[in-house]
Amino acid sequence: MSHNTFGHLFRFTTWGESHGLALGCVVDGCPPGLVISEEEIQTYLDKRKPGQSRYTTQRREADQVKVLSGVMPQEDGSWLSTGTPISMMIENTDQRSKDYSEIAKRYRPGHADYTYDAKYGIRDYRGGGRSSARETAARVAAGAIARKIIPGVTVRAALVQIGTHKVDRSRWDWAEVDNNPFFCPDPAMAETWATELDKVRKAGSSVGAVIEVVAEGVPAGWGAPIYGKLDQDICSAFMSINAVKGVEIGNGFEAAAISGEENADQIRMGDDGPVFLSNQSGGILGGISSGQPVVARFAVKPTSSILTPRQSITSDGEEVDVMTKGRHDPCVGIRAVPIGEAMMACVLADHFLRHRGQIGETE
Amino acid sequence: MSHNTFGHLFRFTTWGESHGLALGCVVDGCPPGLVISEEEIQTYLDKRKPGQSRYTTQRREADQVKVLSGVMPQEDGSWLSTGTPISMMIENTDQRSKDYSEIAKRYRPGHADYTYDAKYGIRDYRGGGRSSARETAARVAAGAIARKIIPGVTVRAALVQIGTHKVDRSRWDWAEVDNNPFFCPDPAMAETWATELDKVRKAGSSVGAVIEVVAEGVPAGWGAPIYGKLDQDICSAFMSINAVKGVEIGNGFEAAAISGEENADQIRMGDDGPVFLSNQSGGILGGISSGQPVVARFAVKPTSSILTPRQSITSDGEEVDVMTKGRHDPCVGIRAVPIGEAMMACVLADHFLRHRGQIGETE
Amino acid sequence: MSHNTFGHLFRFTTWGESHGLALGCVVDGCPPGLVISEEEIQTYLDKRKPGQSRYTTQRREADQVKVLSGVMPQEDGSWLSTGTPISMMIENTDQRSKDYSEIAKRYRPGHADYTYDAKYGIRDYRGGGRSSARETAARVAAGAIARKIIPGVTVRAALVQIGTHKVDRSRWDWAEVDNNPFFCPDPAMAETWATELDKVRKAGSSVGAVIEVVAEGVPAGWGAPIYGKLDQDICSAFMSINAVKGVEIGNGFEAAAISGEENADQIRMGDDGPVFLSNQSGGILGGISSGQPVVARFAVKPTSSILTPRQSITSDGEEVDVMTKGRHDPCVGIRAVPIGEAMMACVLADHFLRHRGQIGETE
Amino acid sequence: MSHNTFGHLFRFTTWGESHGLALGCVVDGCPPGLVISEEEIQTYLDKRKPGQSRYTTQRREADQVKVLSGVMPQEDGSWLSTGTPISMMIENTDQRSKDYSEIAKRYRPGHADYTYDAKYGIRDYRGGGRSSARETAARVAAGAIARKIIPGVTVRAALVQIGTHKVDRSRWDWAEVDNNPFFCPDPAMAETWATELDKVRKAGSSVGAVIEVVAEGVPAGWGAPIYGKLDQDICSAFMSINAVKGVEIGNGFEAAAISGEENADQIRMGDDGPVFLSNQSGGILGGISSGQPVVARFAVKPTSSILTPRQSITSDGEEVDVMTKGRHDPCVGIRAVPIGEAMMACVLADHFLRHRGQIGETE
Repeated sequence: MSHNTFGHLFRFTTWGESHGLALGCVVDGCPPGLVISEEEIQTYLDKRKPGQSRYTTQRREADQVKVLSGVMPQEDGSWLSTGTPISMMIENTDQRSKDYSEIAKRYRPGHADYTYDAKYGIRDYRGGGRSSARETAARVAAGAIARKIIPGVTVRAALVQIGTHKVDRSRWDWAEVDNNPFFCPDPAMAETWATELDKVRKAGSSVGAVIEVVAEGVPAGWGAPIYGKLDQDICSAFMSINAVKGVEIGNGFEAAAISGEENADQIRMGDDGPVFLSNQSGGILGGISSGQPVVARFAVKPTSSILTPRQSITSDGEEVDVMTKGRHDPCVGIRAVPIGEAMMACVLADHFLRHRGQIGETE
Repeated sequence: MSHNTFGHLFRFTTWGESHGLALGCVVDGCPPGLVISEEEIQTYLDKRKPGQSRYTTQRREADQVKVLSGVMPQEDGSWLSTGTPISMMIENTDQRSKDYSEIAKRYRPGHADYTYDAKYGIRDYRGGGRSSARETAARVAAGAIARKIIPGVTVRAALVQIGTHKVDRSRWDWAEVDNNPFFCPDPAMAETWATELDKVRKAGSSVGAVIEVVAEGVPAGWGAPIYGKLDQDICSAFMSINAVKGVEIGNGFEAAAISGEENADQIRMGDDGPVFLSNQSGGILGGISSGQPVVARFAVKPTSSILTPRQSITSDGEEVDVMTKGRHDPCVGIRAVPIGEAMMACVLADHFLRHRGQIGETE
Repeated sequence: MSHNTFGHLFRFTTWGESHGLALGCVVDGCPPGLVISEEEIQTYLDKRKPGQSRYTTQRREADQVKVLSGVMPQEDGSWLSTGTPISMMIENTDQRSKDYSEIAKRYRPGHADYTYDAKYGIRDYRGGGRSSARETAARVAAGAIARKIIPGVTVRAALVQIGTHKVDRSRWDWAEVDNNPFFCPDPAMAETWATELDKVRKAGSSVGAVIEVVAEGVPAGWGAPIYGKLDQDICSAFMSINAVKGVEIGNGFEAAAISGEENADQIRMGDDGPVFLSNQSGGILGGISSGQPVVARFAVKPTSSILTPRQSITSDGEEVDVMTKGRHDPCVGIRAVPIGEAMMACVLADHFLRHRGQIGETE
Repeated sequence: MSHNTFGHLFRFTTWGESHGLALGCVVDGCPPGLVISEEEIQTYLDKRKPGQSRYTTQRREADQVKVLSGVMPQEDGSWLSTGTPISMMIENTDQRSKDYSEIAKRYRPGHADYTYDAKYGIRDYRGGGRSSARETAARVAAGAIARKIIPGVTVRAALVQIGTHKVDRSRWDWAEVDNNPFFCPDPAMAETWATELDKVRKAGSSVGAVIEVVAEGVPAGWGAPIYGKLDQDICSAFMSINAVKGVEIGNGFEAAAISGEENADQIRMGDDGPVFLSNQSGGILGGISSGQPVVARFAVKPTSSILTPRQSITSDGEEVDVMTKGRHDPCVGIRAVPIGEAMMACVLADHFLRHRGQIGETE
């Protein structure tokens, strides 16, 4: 059972609510001897941090990570992992004292308020409690550890669609991803999005997005049939992210519309082994990596926190109109980019260790 | 770890290869006292069985299920579950003795031949071995047990797209699903598909599909944040099915393109509790069921078993052309319909038991 | 959750009742390329088989194992594991048709009849159903696979106590274990036991026993703190065996009575690394193997199937006297010897794979 | 996989080293609506705290617990569990700055220094790092939550043996357990132990102990065959505690020495259901609770931290003599009493939830 734990050999357990004292995670299964540094973990958290442009929420969250266990200081001041659990904590600093009486009973449409109450009969309504996307900060920290386990693998992500506007793949440039506030690989589209999102923001509305995550350097052979498939775990990882409604591997839903001739990636022999002539499969066949780049996408819905009043009810069954006041993200998909990267890194680290466990010389 | 096991409180482990002696599954966690009947399980297997129309493979597989354990015969001849593992076996009857020397070394493009070899260094190449869709017969048997655990829930599925042809939702009629060989809820589209698939079949080609699975009667409150989300487990279940490349919940990828106003399902108060004015969410908010129908879709790629030769290599690194001889499905998506239903039933049975475990009066 | 599954990377799921059609197990996580043979598995089952001497039950069970999946026949006729689940089945041949009306409602004291009914409200009373020691045949089959994974490790077991009679360790000779019907390493004690058990058998009584299991060749480093300790998993494995009431590692309960000076195993440097001057620890420190032989023991209670009437009740609450008719083991501990070996092998195979997964060069 | 996690539906993950910044645990699966209070958790921690008598180590550890998540403050100031993870942290306050150069390379005999190095190649040698019994503080905190889930169950423990001195069961008085520094139910024996332990302490030696844990109020039906047995999980829980070498249920190893007539607990019908005439089984039959008190014991070895020099080696293979300087427990078994209680409570809470999940009315 894994209500708050993700992964198997590499696994992490997250805890914490939006407006509690702190949130964090415990990473278990990290091999020993890896250089772990708070500064390095922090660089990934900083990518996810809100308030970095006018396109994300203006909440100020320092999101400063502390590593509490699982590392051993060396004489040179660096830390090495010891193979024991790495506990990381982020204190919540932006806990403005506030009157929650109004939101305590109102179910925001599109949010999990109603379903949490239906399940638990009690709910931490402060800032969304456990259902807040603040939990994803802990995933990003875990992802930073995961990357250390698979140094030969490059995991990158980009935003490929906001609303109806999709990037032009012929203009794709990974280097551009860090040059705009959208993680957009197509600079022309970044400008379109800027204009578009300004409108959305001013209207107090919101819009959805699609994120693409690519892992290069994954050797053939990771993943496991039948219920430990690499694509299955990637899907599970992405679908666990707040507001995600769809997941694809390789050509995804497009595969439904094409023929077997177009879809199957042909193979030729190269100097260093098999060379695939296309990558419709997204680097995974039968749940196992093929050595091609692993390519996956997920769709994020528009946040339901908008200024337009929407019909809803209270926990007492009273009909009310609900509108969001104050700070919010016009496109929550933007901040989902580093989260998608982190989850992909975690899945790959897990599968690397699982593969190493099952396959190899018997002793 | 769950390489060949799916689920937690309700869980099943499958085993068997395409051309071995038998295949089967062990269902663990079935509550006691449920009426289990081989005839009833068989009705679901018969829906999945190949050779029922010219649109599915002409292999003859009896797919006759035997229940080997976990039930106690009653005086009236019926069987009741005892709470112990239910082992089910399907013997492979269509094992034509055959010369496998040609396919033993050839990697069929789009199939898992290469990746299995890359992972294991050995592979059962007879009929696809473990990567064959024959394994899904065991899932359908498990799904039949799962349905007994959640009698108030109706799980149904339909094919909603073949190639580029999508059903017209205004003509949706569940009763039509059993009236055509495609599980198509739109009789007009069924005719279009028949014409289309005849062409595909005659051309020795194949085409992809999209399946929609709907569960009605799921009460609000099933599912669990953060890594035991109901939608996460549905995705994982569907993505574990052979040839699946994408999964959606509710409006899925469409959510990326619309605004927060359009996307959030508003709520009013009805006589029997909350009434949602739309179901963009697909019945799940924050990973927990909302009481609305649970709606999910998955995309199946066109099978790579086609008559047109495709470029590939052998396990010795020799370049070859590969084409499929003999029997195959022009659209493997058709037979994925009962499999999708079965997996949805399994996920729901598991979450029902998990919910019952965590939530309730303390003793 | 693992109600009927044992282990993690190497794991098996058992199914079946005493008097059903068959019983078996599915072994998951076996690495590929290992030679698997029904004959070899059968040799272990034959050691456990009843009816081999007058000291074990005279039931005739062929206990013939069939391997149904997970292996690939080679040209020389041998089978290699493929890395996919190995399903093994043993058909129940000694299912005499019989009148169960008397035992159906009577709770045999010391057996699990009452507790199964209390839990499930239904119970397969034929031969003890799922609570019968017949289930352990499946474990022995799994253990035979486990041994293939750790060929450098020798796992052996011996009976060291029957009733109050303990073997004299100064006479311990592993070669003697196969020379008597008790798996006794002390030939003199074997004679004492023969006399003693004849009395017990004629009196229709029963007696308990202690089994010692020793694994040699386990390298230092297997096991994992804190909740994946090697000794913890050995304990769990042994305690899952029918009728076991106690488990010890190394000097076990004796450790409570001695001083720290006596208890700690001192270390000197040998040619091939550290040499321990004693093995009070039983080869495990902090849950991790030390390179010394792993030594564990478990106590088996006397079977409650005896000829003397004992007071009990029926499922209707009626007070009755219960006595066992027919075949039974005067000392069930004898047949527990190969079961203990099998479980030790399974734990070690699992920990070998887990260790290999977590520890090693990063890619 | 559960290297640092214990339990299934009720589960906790611990983290932290002896001399790191902090240690703690994340409790997952706690049902919602339970009153959680730091003060109440602290009372259990205080029982485990060192330095409370001259018979335990004189280290000063405040062991002050902080609850960081998973609770919702109510208007009356109390906290209710919300069903989300409860993260608890204990800061390490007694981290004296110290020169570790001497102990960094020396393997203390009987400790896990050598095996950690053999496994991980790196080790936090400060105060024993992860292998220190300080980790058990986190278990005690988890146990305090577990008790809230099973309010009808009373879990108590007592020390029943120190060295060769066992309590006289005819003098057993639970009320005495809190009246002496040994958790001894026999006041006369407490005096004997005081005298004995003063000698041991002055000699710089140490001695082992046996702890008995009793749970009353457990209804019949908890636990699950075959690999989720209640006694199996209790054993696993106890064997995971530092220094434990043996575990027993009911009459334990004594069962090996007696006859089936003596061993089987007879049953009569009482006013409120079945009444067992004895409790040799320790309240568990076939892995399922019988409604009688659950009785288990575990043996703790004498700590290897003693003043007498013992032969050992360094990580460089140099032969050295090792002796412990400074503070240590002459009998670590004393502080194991509240730990044993906590682990029993955790196992029972887990099995209560598992039982509730699997057994009940279908929806």
